[in-house]
Amino acid sequence: MAANGASGGATHKFDPNFTKNVIAATGPKAAPRTRKVLGSLIQHLHDFARENEITVDEWMSAVEFINEAGQMSTDVRNEGQLVCDILGLESLVDEITYKLASDASDAPTATAILGPFWRKDAPKLSMGDSIIIKSSQDEEVTHMYGIVTDFKTGKPIGGAELDVWHTAPNGMYEQQDPEQPDFNLRGRFTTGKDGKYDFYCLKPTAYPIPDDGPAGRLLKMLDRHPMRPAHIHFIVSAPGYKPIVTQIFDRTDQYCGNDSVFAVKDSLIVDFMPLKDDKKAKFELPYDFRMASFEDAAKHSAIGSTEDSTA
Amino acid sequence: MAANGASGGATHKFDPNFTKNVIAATGPKAAPRTRKVLGSLIQHLHDFARENEITVDEWMSAVEFINEAGQMSTDVRNEGQLVCDILGLESLVDEITYKLASDASDAPTATAILGPFWRKDAPKLSMGDSIIIKSSQDEEVTHMYGIVTDFKTGKPIGGAELDVWHTAPNGMYEQQDPEQPDFNLRGRFTTGKDGKYDFYCLKPTAYPIPDDGPAGRLLKMLDRHPMRPAHIHFIVSAPGYKPIVTQIFDRTDQYCGNDSVFAVKDSLIVDFMPLKDDKKAKFELPYDFRMASFEDAAKHSAIGSTEDSTA
Repeated sequence: MAANGASGGATHKFDPNFTKNVIAATGPKAAPRTRKVLGSLIQHLHDFARENEITVDEWMSAVEFINEAGQMSTDVRNEGQLVCDILGLESLVDEITYKLASDASDAPTATAILGPFWRKDAPKLSMGDSIIIKSSQDEEVTHMYGIVTDFKTGKPIGGAELDVWHTAPNGMYEQQDPEQPDFNLRGRFTTGKDGKYDFYCLKPTAYPIPDDGPAGRLLKMLDRHPMRPAHIHFIVSAPGYKPIVTQIFDRTDQYCGNDSVFAVKDSLIVDFMPLKDDKKAKFELPYDFRMASFEDAAKHSAIGSTEDSTA
Repeated sequence: MAANGASGGATHKFDPNFTKNVIAATGPKAAPRTRKVLGSLIQHLHDFARENEITVDEWMSAVEFINEAGQMSTDVRNEGQLVCDILGLESLVDEITYKLASDASDAPTATAILGPFWRKDAPKLSMGDSIIIKSSQDEEVTHMYGIVTDFKTGKPIGGAELDVWHTAPNGMYEQQDPEQPDFNLRGRFTTGKDGKYDFYCLKPTAYPIPDDGPAGRLLKMLDRHPMRPAHIHFIVSAPGYKPIVTQIFDRTDQYCGNDSVFAVKDSLIVDFMPLKDDKKAKFELPYDFRMASFEDAAKHSAIGSTEDSTA
């Protein structure tokens, strides 16, 4: 445990007992998980401050940065999450949470971050419907279809819900864009007994994450671009199965190798295939989702359940 | 540097290149200090997440905690700062910033955290004035006096400003308390050629930091009390001298050994001495401030100037 280690203690010139005393102030009634996680957080924060000899001015500008991120956050914008995303933190905890034994060749579908633009209560649609409420000139309609199966038995899963969302060709989600109707490019589909699904959406577009706030300033300080590769978001859930939160990425996108929020995994890169002689769509995209039952997920998961929440 | 180290890399079961890739995304135009500090921050945050196997749910509750701290912050309340304070971070960066060579037996006055309750533009008062605008029943008026000197030459410093503030006997600063007049228990005093100062204030009172927000929830999770030992705040500044931000603490206070924000230093503990036969005050408190010129401060400081701000 870093919390009990002497990390940095031997070499720095500051009070050698300070961090120990702060951690030791934790009372006897703190939950075990709280004690472990926050003790480790204090140790890392203090080591970080000492290693970099952080000044009061630097620390205070970080406090103002964080306060501003909170003040900017609303029902339709989560700036704190966005700041974490550009530091790779959401992708990392996603990996940690969903890590499965890597030797399973028949592994469930990989996961990717939820991101800050999901909305609950997207419209429930029927198979074969389109999530496009408002058309636009440069849109490229895509017919997406596939099957939801149990990754272990290979059997189709009926009653699975696919919650799907993506941006308009202008790179904006509907809640960011007053020109788009409510819930444009969002929908939920429920599989029948055959586990199959199909719907119409757009071939997605690369877009910049909102960079007019603290997260954008951080990107500029880091001399980084704000672009995300074109992707479609999914939450796939079914009774008795571990939900899959994921994104699939367009292989032809130039940002697949340098996503500003570090969410791309090789197994999530897909090929949109041109469709000939189809009146409704220019592209087709077959994609299957493989789910793990809670039982199998627990068996394969890298981590057990946590004792309590940390904050 | 942690940013370039392989900390944790050998033992954990997660993508061994992930953190390296996030740090490597920093562009060529990032300032050297930004590259160092944020690279180290990313390394520590990721190591923390891996060592504790932080889940998406735990991380998301931390994001909501931080956003809420920002939303609660106003002109008169800085919740982000308060959260840092109870984790010992402000006291640590204060130590880092002001650390002077410890072998100087004639060292300048020690520093302590600014805290979230300082206000600019406190009333300018004359020597011998009182900062008490509104009296209260259980107040214990104190005559505080002393001299401001150059810590190296011992000579008095004229034109030095003492900015002083403390809570009312109910434990509240005036901006927290609608019953107190504006700028009650705050004042600024400027020394004459003799470097001397004196004014009337109160013997201060222990009080809880505001615990009705995220910082308070964090304290409860850690099974810790919110109390601060009785103290008086000062900023002492003079042309050509490094400002001193400090607090002095009442030795008789039970919380001197367990300050909720870890600000107490031995050299800042003082004795309020009973005054007999004084109509204006019950206690007296002699206290001298020793300042370092910018030149001497630079010589003694543990750290050089920083190349740029970090956030």
